[in-house]
Amino acid sequence: MKISVIGATGYAGAELLRLLYGHPEAKLVHITSESHKGEKIASLYPNLRGLCDLTLESMQDMEKIGADSDFVFIALPHGHAMEVGKGLAHLPVRIIDLGADYRFKDTAVYEAWYHVPHTHKEAERVYGLAELYREDIRRAKIIGNAGCFTTASILALAPLAKEKLVDMQSIVIDAKSGVSGAGRSPKQGNHFPELYDNFKAYNVAHHRHTPEIEQALTDLSGETTVLNFTPHLVPMSRGILATSYAHLREGVTAEEVGAAFHSLYDNEYFIRLLGEGGYPSTKEVRGSNFTDLAWHIDDRTHRVIVLSAIDNLVKGAAGQAIQNFNIACGFDEKTGLDFVPMYP
Amino acid sequence: MKISVIGATGYAGAELLRLLYGHPEAKLVHITSESHKGEKIASLYPNLRGLCDLTLESMQDMEKIGADSDFVFIALPHGHAMEVGKGLAHLPVRIIDLGADYRFKDTAVYEAWYHVPHTHKEAERVYGLAELYREDIRRAKIIGNAGCFTTASILALAPLAKEKLVDMQSIVIDAKSGVSGAGRSPKQGNHFPELYDNFKAYNVAHHRHTPEIEQALTDLSGETTVLNFTPHLVPMSRGILATSYAHLREGVTAEEVGAAFHSLYDNEYFIRLLGEGGYPSTKEVRGSNFTDLAWHIDDRTHRVIVLSAIDNLVKGAAGQAIQNFNIACGFDEKTGLDFVPMYP
Amino acid sequence: MKISVIGATGYAGAELLRLLYGHPEAKLVHITSESHKGEKIASLYPNLRGLCDLTLESMQDMEKIGADSDFVFIALPHGHAMEVGKGLAHLPVRIIDLGADYRFKDTAVYEAWYHVPHTHKEAERVYGLAELYREDIRRAKIIGNAGCFTTASILALAPLAKEKLVDMQSIVIDAKSGVSGAGRSPKQGNHFPELYDNFKAYNVAHHRHTPEIEQALTDLSGETTVLNFTPHLVPMSRGILATSYAHLREGVTAEEVGAAFHSLYDNEYFIRLLGEGGYPSTKEVRGSNFTDLAWHIDDRTHRVIVLSAIDNLVKGAAGQAIQNFNIACGFDEKTGLDFVPMYP
Amino acid sequence: MKISVIGATGYAGAELLRLLYGHPEAKLVHITSESHKGEKIASLYPNLRGLCDLTLESMQDMEKIGADSDFVFIALPHGHAMEVGKGLAHLPVRIIDLGADYRFKDTAVYEAWYHVPHTHKEAERVYGLAELYREDIRRAKIIGNAGCFTTASILALAPLAKEKLVDMQSIVIDAKSGVSGAGRSPKQGNHFPELYDNFKAYNVAHHRHTPEIEQALTDLSGETTVLNFTPHLVPMSRGILATSYAHLREGVTAEEVGAAFHSLYDNEYFIRLLGEGGYPSTKEVRGSNFTDLAWHIDDRTHRVIVLSAIDNLVKGAAGQAIQNFNIACGFDEKTGLDFVPMYP
Repeated sequence: MKISVIGATGYAGAELLRLLYGHPEAKLVHITSESHKGEKIASLYPNLRGLCDLTLESMQDMEKIGADSDFVFIALPHGHAMEVGKGLAHLPVRIIDLGADYRFKDTAVYEAWYHVPHTHKEAERVYGLAELYREDIRRAKIIGNAGCFTTASILALAPLAKEKLVDMQSIVIDAKSGVSGAGRSPKQGNHFPELYDNFKAYNVAHHRHTPEIEQALTDLSGETTVLNFTPHLVPMSRGILATSYAHLREGVTAEEVGAAFHSLYDNEYFIRLLGEGGYPSTKEVRGSNFTDLAWHIDDRTHRVIVLSAIDNLVKGAAGQAIQNFNIACGFDEKTGLDFVPMYP
Repeated sequence: MKISVIGATGYAGAELLRLLYGHPEAKLVHITSESHKGEKIASLYPNLRGLCDLTLESMQDMEKIGADSDFVFIALPHGHAMEVGKGLAHLPVRIIDLGADYRFKDTAVYEAWYHVPHTHKEAERVYGLAELYREDIRRAKIIGNAGCFTTASILALAPLAKEKLVDMQSIVIDAKSGVSGAGRSPKQGNHFPELYDNFKAYNVAHHRHTPEIEQALTDLSGETTVLNFTPHLVPMSRGILATSYAHLREGVTAEEVGAAFHSLYDNEYFIRLLGEGGYPSTKEVRGSNFTDLAWHIDDRTHRVIVLSAIDNLVKGAAGQAIQNFNIACGFDEKTGLDFVPMYP
Repeated sequence: MKISVIGATGYAGAELLRLLYGHPEAKLVHITSESHKGEKIASLYPNLRGLCDLTLESMQDMEKIGADSDFVFIALPHGHAMEVGKGLAHLPVRIIDLGADYRFKDTAVYEAWYHVPHTHKEAERVYGLAELYREDIRRAKIIGNAGCFTTASILALAPLAKEKLVDMQSIVIDAKSGVSGAGRSPKQGNHFPELYDNFKAYNVAHHRHTPEIEQALTDLSGETTVLNFTPHLVPMSRGILATSYAHLREGVTAEEVGAAFHSLYDNEYFIRLLGEGGYPSTKEVRGSNFTDLAWHIDDRTHRVIVLSAIDNLVKGAAGQAIQNFNIACGFDEKTGLDFVPMYP
Repeated sequence: MKISVIGATGYAGAELLRLLYGHPEAKLVHITSESHKGEKIASLYPNLRGLCDLTLESMQDMEKIGADSDFVFIALPHGHAMEVGKGLAHLPVRIIDLGADYRFKDTAVYEAWYHVPHTHKEAERVYGLAELYREDIRRAKIIGNAGCFTTASILALAPLAKEKLVDMQSIVIDAKSGVSGAGRSPKQGNHFPELYDNFKAYNVAHHRHTPEIEQALTDLSGETTVLNFTPHLVPMSRGILATSYAHLREGVTAEEVGAAFHSLYDNEYFIRLLGEGGYPSTKEVRGSNFTDLAWHIDDRTHRVIVLSAIDNLVKGAAGQAIQNFNIACGFDEKTGLDFVPMYP
């Protein structure tokens, strides 16, 4: 399959290039960057030195890019992907957007949280969280790849929501991410000496991944879900750990909780269940597309606490995009993604 | 005042030595370690090279140590301090224990969580969280210095508990600590390559700081409080950030929440209020005895989220011990603790 | 090819398992550990969860292990591999030892630096630095895989030594390694809080990689070479950067220096030349088998400074072992090693 | 003494504020920043929250600032301090410049390496490396505070240069610094995810601290010294370790080397000698004004290797400035600097 990557110079775009290098069915045809057009990608990402000789192009001639490609992966800031999507609507090319533009069924929710008008409301789109929306992904024209925090959070709570084991209004998700999640542009707050040996929260009560998590859990539980999501920055480059809390409904047993996880995930290659009492860690999934999951039940408070770990750039971005690509193409889902996390 | 430190080779003990060096009213007389007796402390903590020439002694001759000292600071693993406390009961020396042995009013709670019999139940003791128990501390024979996670957690929630602004059964505390909190003994889990670039939770639903937090919040609110406390390890050496969640009681306003914090803490030198919407970070308090506090109100979920940052070895251990010492001696509370956090 | 790994629970052994997972021509048959025999490897290295179901065995029945295997990789502490090598001498199995036992032509040098008698002096062995000893490796019974620091150092200086461009007595190698190079056993010095935010040298003037570097440079230059090698610990998990200094011989030009590098390495897939004035970094080779090389010429001092970066666990250990395996088997040298370094 | 800080928002300026807070003889009167004038310093450095209420002013009215102050500390980029110095020449105020403008006796050297014309060549100035130029500092109008790498390097080599124990043309200094040394402005190269878990060299063969080191060693040895200095970035915030190599002159003994260090430094409070074979580390001096020094002698190569560790923001910048201030005022040299390094 011929693939183009629009916005190849951010961390998610570069991670796509890393992973597509090892994909036997993918051939890169165009990669774009407006600010670095004409430069070799390897001059910006020297890890690619000798491995990827492509030159960054402008995305101005989208018509040609679309015509040359079977799939276009978009890794642009929100608000820009829908312009690309509209421009490609008349072509047979399929689209996987790593940003937020195509993640919401109700574009009013998007507009309320992202503060931009949605200009492609009629797009035929599906939510790209592979384990939960696989059937829709197979045939989709546009896949709105799930976000990083949202993937870790939704996968943690989906079994409980689906089986109606918890009070959906009691959910608190406390999430922690490595700094690559904040992008490649240098800012004061991400300057090395400021973050190193430091830990802090950000965007409390208004992070944009909140409505995306709520949409999926509402969908799974059939109950309108409003929850707290709090992101934190961990002084490391990669990885997300989400700690999710919910009250068990009256009478729910540990066995039912365990059964819900096993029933939903036992056949999922990219989900590794550590079981009740386990402790996933970000390093154990680093560089891979795995989601490691464990749960704990507190009999004193009748809460279930779910721990989920992913690599934010792989399962939280580029890896999941490729997993969706594999599904959309009918390939084995782990094609190009079948390797061991890098440890230590 | 003549001071001895029992168990001076752990991180909390060594931090006591660092801070006491700059205390104008303190003179170290004995420092002890069973495993390193006869060694110079500066051979174990080379940062003390040229600054502290003391030799580690055994604590076997506690009678002499007690007789030589006005204050004994104990930095031993739990279960050992109460033996020292009993041994010193007949002497005028006063005791500040940095461990858990003297933190609980109800020793049955201690025994249930620490799995050792309490052998000094009759001890005349107070809970050493300076801002909340200052009056008791003035006269105490034995001060059970508050724990690190507990200090960050209790100070975050005390205003809300005291003013009855939140549902006391709705509390979730998600806390993150630097690795020095796990002590100085090397273990597989704290081996550098295992933790670096890694993030994980531990002791979910059964960390021993839980009942200590519950004790204080029950005390402050007048309502038996049961809560979730989840600790995590951050790949850094020092610092705790606690993110605490609670449901606001019906009708409670943002103004009432703010007033509760200001009313309790405006006159507290070591508490810095960043106000509603603020973001404390561990680096901004590093090396100091400050607690930085901020709160956020989520109108969508009717929860208040409180962020609190401390240095686990200072306000969470040695600094608070010195603050308590200052109170017990009638000194200005910031004597020896009045310096700027080290940044960056 | 059927492969066994003797000593699979150290970092180098586990990295072999990670890389062999993706090798199309390798099938693991036995993995051993004396201290963890009977345990699943994935219980020790949870990154392997779901990917490697093997159980650790004792290496006591080496006869069977040798009979079952085409290749045995040994990742034991020095002094132990030669016992395994002797035991397997009568079998057709070939051996790649990741330790020091088979690296020296002159076992007296080994004995002087490692302080143990060499018990397998008659072994038919070659030095396993693929780019420089490829022809010997093809046919070798026993390959003494080059060390981590030595690989970075020798590859940096080989072109200069071979072409006699520098004064061989003027060499200073100042090398810096991530902490995984010190092994997986927890020690006080590698305890997380001690090393984090810290930097220090160790084994100045007597690190055991010194004679290994000298052996290769003597071999290449034809001149007995004695040099300074100084290792340092960088507070990170993986990666080596070596900064090597040498005086240019009278009249040597920048062009000659460049030509020496290009002539030796232009056809080497795993060596990436950044040219004169370049800056390799450990992250740009992380997780990969690449060696990134650049050189600088200081006209003021007539020294050449060479910078070389490798991943100590890949090109410095497991990756080079697989590269040697590929050579020994006649496979394409990059089989199983053809992927992009993980960045950031 | 009334003190003003010109350029208070860089890391060196902010470190001055941290240290001056604890100085009993210093009173801050003005702090300046052109880009942040009108802002509270505590809004930029929240560690100062509650401790420093000063507002940043413009330095435009330098006449008033100079008239109000006994000492002006300048922490501006090179090229700017000499303008301030000229403007204050007619006032009795004394100046300590933390930048490079006043470090060179021969301004032609400055101009050659810094590529700007020197506009204050006639300035009555001394080089502010306290241990070596103390007598000059006492009476100086303008003190050109020594640089960070240079302090670590010169103090390491001064005893050898002074006693003529080494070949002055054989010197190689391989230095490693935490990232705060590169300043507070965010840049791509210092963006957290790029540097974390990474190690690299920079400015090989042309770092501007080179001529400053050469100037001092030439001065001490009486022999024109040309050397290699190579800086590296360590993924940590603070600290410098310099590894310096030199050939011992024929016949020089280990005793003579040791005697040179002891003779020069035994009475220096801020220099801690670890002796032959010792291993200083950056964490053991963190936050303090100490220089820890050790040396190793390699009998095989006849080189001496000196290890020196400092905190780049303290002994390498703000602490040394205060030490110079103390000398200039006739105060005890450790006034305001007498505290224990923060460990771990």
